[in-house]
Parts: sequence; C-alpha cells; structure tokens
Amino acid sequence: MAWDPAFESAFHPQAVAIVGASASGASRSTTRGGANFIRAYQQIGFPGRIYPVNPHAEEVLGRRAFPSVSTIPEPVDYVIVSVPAPEVPAVLEDCARAGAKNVHVYTAGFRESGAPEGVELERRIAEIARRERLRLVGPNSMGLCYVPRSRMSIFPGVSPEPGEVAFLSQSGGHCLQFIQYARGLGVRFSKVISYGNGIILDSTDFLEYLAKDPETRVLCVYVEGVRDGRRLLELVKATNPVKPVVLWKGGLTQSSARAAASHTGSLAGEARVWDAFFKQTGALAVYALDDMADLAMTLVCNMIPPRGRRAAIVLSGGGYSVLAADTCAREGLEVPEFTPETQRALREFIPPAGNSIRNPVDAEAAVRNADLFLRALELAAADPVVDLVIVSLHLDMLRQVGEDNLRRMGQNLVRFARENPYGKSVAAILDSWGGDPVVQKERSRLLEELPRAGVPVFRNLLRASRSLAKLAEYYAFLRKAQGTLDVPD
Amino acid sequence: MAWDPAFESAFHPQAVAIVGASASGASRSTTRGGANFIRAYQQIGFPGRIYPVNPHAEEVLGRRAFPSVSTIPEPVDYVIVSVPAPEVPAVLEDCARAGAKNVHVYTAGFRESGAPEGVELERRIAEIARRERLRLVGPNSMGLCYVPRSRMSIFPGVSPEPGEVAFLSQSGGHCLQFIQYARGLGVRFSKVISYGNGIILDSTDFLEYLAKDPETRVLCVYVEGVRDGRRLLELVKATNPVKPVVLWKGGLTQSSARAAASHTGSLAGEARVWDAFFKQTGALAVYALDDMADLAMTLVCNMIPPRGRRAAIVLSGGGYSVLAADTCAREGLEVPEFTPETQRALREFIPPAGNSIRNPVDAEAAVRNADLFLRALELAAADPVVDLVIVSLHLDMLRQVGEDNLRRMGQNLVRFARENPYGKSVAAILDSWGGDPVVQKERSRLLEELPRAGVPVFRNLLRASRSLAKLAEYYAFLRKAQGTLDVPD
Repeated sequence: MAWDPAFESAFHPQAVAIVGASASGASRSTTRGGANFIRAYQQIGFPGRIYPVNPHAEEVLGRRAFPSVSTIPEPVDYVIVSVPAPEVPAVLEDCARAGAKNVHVYTAGFRESGAPEGVELERRIAEIARRERLRLVGPNSMGLCYVPRSRMSIFPGVSPEPGEVAFLSQSGGHCLQFIQYARGLGVRFSKVISYGNGIILDSTDFLEYLAKDPETRVLCVYVEGVRDGRRLLELVKATNPVKPVVLWKGGLTQSSARAAASHTGSLAGEARVWDAFFKQTGALAVYALDDMADLAMTLVCNMIPPRGRRAAIVLSGGGYSVLAADTCAREGLEVPEFTPETQRALREFIPPAGNSIRNPVDAEAAVRNADLFLRALELAAADPVVDLVIVSLHLDMLRQVGEDNLRRMGQNLVRFARENPYGKSVAAILDSWGGDPVVQKERSRLLEELPRAGVPVFRNLLRASRSLAKLAEYYAFLRKAQGTLDVPD
Repeated sequence: MAWDPAFESAFHPQAVAIVGASASGASRSTTRGGANFIRAYQQIGFPGRIYPVNPHAEEVLGRRAFPSVSTIPEPVDYVIVSVPAPEVPAVLEDCARAGAKNVHVYTAGFRESGAPEGVELERRIAEIARRERLRLVGPNSMGLCYVPRSRMSIFPGVSPEPGEVAFLSQSGGHCLQFIQYARGLGVRFSKVISYGNGIILDSTDFLEYLAKDPETRVLCVYVEGVRDGRRLLELVKATNPVKPVVLWKGGLTQSSARAAASHTGSLAGEARVWDAFFKQTGALAVYALDDMADLAMTLVCNMIPPRGRRAAIVLSGGGYSVLAADTCAREGLEVPEFTPETQRALREFIPPAGNSIRNPVDAEAAVRNADLFLRALELAAADPVVDLVIVSLHLDMLRQVGEDNLRRMGQNLVRFARENPYGKSVAAILDSWGGDPVVQKERSRLLEELPRAGVPVFRNLLRASRSLAKLAEYYAFLRKAQGTLDVPD
C-alpha cells in the first residue's frame, strides 16, 4: 500500500471506536480486551471521542455502546478491533460499510498460530482489507500505541510525552519495554507503532510515513520478517542520511527464527542477507533494546559527529584505565597514544606516581582540582590524533574530596561541553553509588545540562564505546556515500 | 616466594603499624595517606591494636605515635607503608630490624612511573625484601584490603561481611568497584587482595594461599602482568577443578597494555598466549567486572552444574521470545525445539494465539495462573533435549493480574527450584520497573530464597545466558579432564 496522507487521521484521530469492549469492563485479562484500551485512553486524558462497540451492551465504562461501527453517528478516524479471531472478518466488513479506513486489529490467532484455521482467517481479512482499501494495522499487534501529540497511549500508566524518536516495532512487548527503558535515558517519542503480522501495512509503509513525518528525527525499527525486502532496502537507504535509522533485526538465529514464526508469523531470513542489507544502507545495526536506546539518546542530543574512531579517555584509576582501553578496543574504537606535546603538557600537572598521561589519562590528581581537570580535557581534545573524548567521573569520589569540588568539576565539564574549542565529539559517564543526596542532585543536573550541550551520558564505558563506534561507522558511511573527504589525516 | 603459614598472621593481625600517618590526620587527599587507613580501621571497629608511625608527631587521630616500627613495644603482624617513594627503603630496613615480616607498600612511584628513579627504587626495595625475607605486598597497591574475619577494610564506609568469594586483583580500584557491585548481587567475600606491582608476593603466591584457604570457595582474579607464567598455569590448572577460578586478564589490547605498563609496570603479554592459557587450565575467562560478579554469584549459590548448553526458556511476550533466543545463541547457548511430547503437553493449557510452545515458551496464559506456570516449568525441565531452564518473569506484569497471583507465582517458582524434579540447572530473571512496594517486597524475598535453592537470579537474559554458557563450558572441561562421561546423549 502506497503512502497516503489520509493516514494522518489514524495518528491524530478525533473519534475512535473500540470493538469488543465488554459491558462490565472486565476482560479476559488485564492487558487484553477492548475495555483496557478505553481505560488507557481515559487515564491519560485522550481529547477525542471514544465509542465502545458491543452489540450486547448498552454502556461500557460509563460510555454509550454501539452495536456496530456503522451505527456510530459520526465518521470514525481509528478503529481498534479486539474480538475473537473468527469474528474479525465481519467487523472489517462493517468498518468498510461505515467508511472507517484506519483499522487496527489487536486480536491474535492468525498465521502466527501455525494452525490451518489461523492461516485461512488471515488470508480472508487480507482479502477484505485489500478490496475495501482499509489501512489495516496488524493483526496480532498493539497498533499505533503511543502518539504523544494526540495523547494516545495504550499502556496504562505510561503518559505520552513528545520527543523526536519514532519506534516502529513488529513486537508490542518491545514497545512498552523500549519506552520504559529509553525514558530513563531521557529519550522521548514522536510515535510508537506496533504492527504485528503486518499483512497490509508493513514496516515499509510506516517507514515511508515516518521518513516524511516532521515530528520524527530519529528512526528506531524492530523487524522480524519483511514482505518486500527490496523496498525496505531502498527506503532505508534514502532515509538514513537524513534521519538515522537504527535497525534491530530479530530472528537471525535458528531458534529465534522459530520464535519469530510463532510470534508474528514471519519468515525471518538469513543472517548474510541482512549483513548485505546493512552494508548497502548504512543503517545502524543493533541486537538489543539497550543498544538501540543508547543510540537514540546519542542521536537526539546533537553530539558533534565523530570524525573517526580514535578516542581519548579521561578518567581516574589505573585498573579502570586498563579496562577502559580494553573495552574500547573490543567495541571498535581506537585509543591512540597522545603526541609527545600533549604528554609533556599533561605531565606538568599530573604527577607520575600511579597515573598515566599517555591515554587513557588517569587524571586522579586532576579530579581533585576542577581547573586542572578542565585543562586535561582541553589538552586531550586538542591532540590531532583524537576524534572523540570520553570522560568518566565517579561523582561520589569527587564528593569525597569536597562538595565544592563536585560542583566545580560539574561546572567545568558543562563549560567544556559548551565551548568544545576543538570541535571534537564528547561523551560522558557519571558513576555514582546512589544514596548520597548531594551527589544525586548534581547528577540530575548534569544529566539535564550535558545532553543539552551535545554530550550524551552513558551508563558505563562499555555502553559508551559501543554506541560511539557505531556512530563513527555511521558517519564514515555517510561521508563515503556523499563523496566528501572531510576526514582528518 | 613459597607459601608460608606465617602469612596467616598478615590476614589476621593482632597488631598493625601504619607508617606515614600525619599528625593532623590530614593528608594529600582523602583516599591517600596513612591516616585514612587508620580511619577506615577505626570506623569498622578493627579489634586489634593500631600503631601510627611518625617521627614528627606525638599522636595521630587520638593514638600515640611511634618514631619507627622498631620502637613499637610489641611484634607487629602487618605494616602499611605510606611514605614518599624515596623513603620506602629505609622503612623496610626498619621493619626488618623489628622482625615485622608482613609489609604492605601503599606508596606508588616505582617501575610503573616509567621514570629511571622509580625503576631503581623498585630494584632496591625488592633487594631489601628478598634479603630480609619480607612478605612484601605491592608497592603501588591497596594491600590486603578487605578481610572480613579480621574486620579489616581499607575502604571507608564499606563494612566487611564474610562470604566465600576471594578477589585477587592487581588493581586497587577494581577491588572497591567489585566489592560494591558484587554486593548488590548478594556476593560476599572471604578476602580481597590488591597486590599492585607484585614485586615479591605475586598473583601465584596469593593464589596458592587462597587455594588452601578454607574460607574461600570461589576465586576471582584480575591480572595485568605475570612474572612466572608457567607457575600460574600449573596453579590455576590444579585449583580450578576444586575451586573455580574466574580470571580476568587486563591489557590484552595494544592501548590497554600501554595503560597496564603505566598502572602496575606490567608487561601485559600477547592475546594468543592467554588463549592457550585458558584452553589448558579451563579457567573461566571474563573481560569485565560485571561478568566476573555474575559468575561468582552463580558459583556460590550451588546451582546444579549444567550438563550441556541446551536451554529451555520460559517467559512471557512474543518479541521477548525472539530476543531471548537470539541472545542465547549469540552468547553460546542452544535453544532446541522441544520434543513433540512436550509441545503436546504444553498445548493443553497454552492457547495457540500469540503464544509459543516450541521453546522459548511464551507462557503469557500461564503467568496468569501459578499452577499452570509451575506445570510449564516442569514440562520444560522434563524434556530430554534440555540441560538448563531459564525462567524470566516481569513482576509488575504478574502484579497487574493481582497481588495474589504475584505471590503464588513466586511461591511456585521457589517450590520448583527446591524440588527440581529433573535435576536440571535453573536460573531466573526477575524484571520490575521499581516503584511498586508490593513488587519490591516480593522481589527481595525471591532474591533471598531462590539463590538459597540453587537458583541464581540475573539482571537480564544477556547476563544469564553469558554466565550459563561460560559455566557449561567450565563443567564440560572438568568432565573431559576427569575422563568421566556423564554427558547426556
């Protein structure tokens, strides 16, 4: 199905119908059943009209119920279908009669069940949807599950706050997990979409929409199977240079492909086909939710794009230096030895005993003096062998030196981030043991101010180096694709 | 230096001397200086006598100071040396005169500094220590930094609680990080040792001691450089079948080897030499602190040793099933398809729609019914293609069904862990969003009861599968080494 501007009405509905909401508000379970959708919309204050559809009830959750979609007195922008699978075809016919084009089928029990009845039912609803030109989301999906501008969130208790990241996911469970996890990193969403079996609207349709969506700046995508691989490739290739596409392909192993077949009825495809896909598109490949969230967080905070993989690391602790260098190398960054000039300049204020000035900078002496620390950062950033600067601080350690030291270190870090005199990418890790309110307050402040100054804050050095290596690869791909040569010698 | 029973007195001293404690109690920094050692001992109530040594003070932190170790009126079991590097040789000569054999040199500024004076100073103190048969720990080290039975902890605020894991580390910073992190997983320590440059007592000496130490059941080791590689290999080979050795080799990459040279003056050695080391010893290789902590946690909770790598996964959520299978495969586990008998039995109570009974078991229906859930676990464990069972629960989801459901699910999980009718290894993941006190209470209870029943609880499936794959490898190595063939067909 081609991209359709009328699709907008699905994301920003004035009137929604929920088919299969039971009279008592009770349902098979707390997360299933149409009544839960109504409840979720009510909880967050969805501003549009909500129409329960149930031929056996007068009222559902305090709202008048209608026997069918076609009996609702106004055109409906978005229909959620939550009736048993065998009843879905009749509901779709009714939607068609009512002129309701945007239909989300929540119900499962189709191709993914593996049962012949399910396969046949899926064939039938696809046929109806095609004939009636329904923009069908699903079946076996959570639908357009989180649209902040419309105050739509189907997850009870998860209030939609607007942001610039879209998450497009074949899995509904991943949507909730991802929203919850990424929010902890400060990531907010433009749209979150779960499309399940994707028999009419597939990853490509949503991708095309999101590529043009002015609210979306970064695309995160979880796919299990793809119907039109060629189209996906062309779309990602075209979108990725403008809006980065972080793509997580599930089902690359034999057992997970089996799980994908049971989950969304997908044929998960071979690993080497996907290798070729990533090589050609330059999309950012991830294998887990936390990696995806880290990249989204980094991409929205406007970090200066790394010009290469050569990292300077400024931290405190000898063992940690060794670990940091090992971790960076393992995740694909380089930790080059500083030039003799940089080493000489660092040696002036970092004493030899138990410290290092070669990279990583073990700046134990400097973390007791905020001005020396700032100087160490500047020297590291100034070195021509360095593309990016990773600074790791243990806030409780700074606090042990003194509350004033903690605060001034933070101020200098923010200052360095803002001024960034050498235009290098900068990332931070802010360790703390928790518990100390002074430390927690300073940490919260830095977690706000640093990303605003273009500095992503990672949970640890592993996460930082993994994301930064991935980003270096992404920008190298873009530079190569664009034929520009602004890579430093 | 050979293993010496007199060494025991260093771990369980009646009298300690701290050389270089300044009169005011002030010091170059909060973590440096002898006064901090005194303060740390005082804080946790060290039961022995503490003697400050300072020729320029009458009293340090309310204790009478002595001008030298040899003027202290009783034999001293353990001496901590925290004077500038050039003064260390004279202090060692004084210790020798006093008959104090256990000397820990905290001071840095020796070979690791890279400066010729430092190299020469290290040569001199090694010579004195050898001549006088001092059991010297360090220099550039935190020493015997955490010995619960003696209530010794050099980390202010970190109170020593006894356990069965020993941590032997060339890095002092890793000691504190590891103690803090592992405590969060319920790991407690027998001894934690930081030996720095290791010029007299090296990894091998401590390893030999810990191998015989009745308080220690699991050995975690962080090394950067090794003086006698052959001896280390023989020791680990002999110890590993009796007390598992989890070994983290730092400095395997070029830049981290450079960091290791600056940190402990170590020549870090080549990656392929260490590959051969792990192949011959069967030690559990890790590359990070959290992996080490997970293995320590698993090894002390007496999980039934996995007979192989074939995992059954019981969880809830289709997308999560795909992720789980992918993650397990990536970390080295297999997720075999259940036998038709198991699938048939699961199908009786797990409905086809949106669920899977092939492995992973997407038991969404069963997590709403604690008895069905127990039955699903038992069926998975009974399947002959399964070596280990990983169960992943989201406690808030269980709670959404009802408080009673949450509690009964927990009870049944503990019951399954205790009875474990098929003798399979079992591991758990207990997700929660935090915040809900009922969930937190149940979680705390399970975090106590499950390990006691031999079930390790991991932070997520990645961590679980990584550790379990490593353990499967460890036990396969032992079986092969012992020539027994109790591997299932």
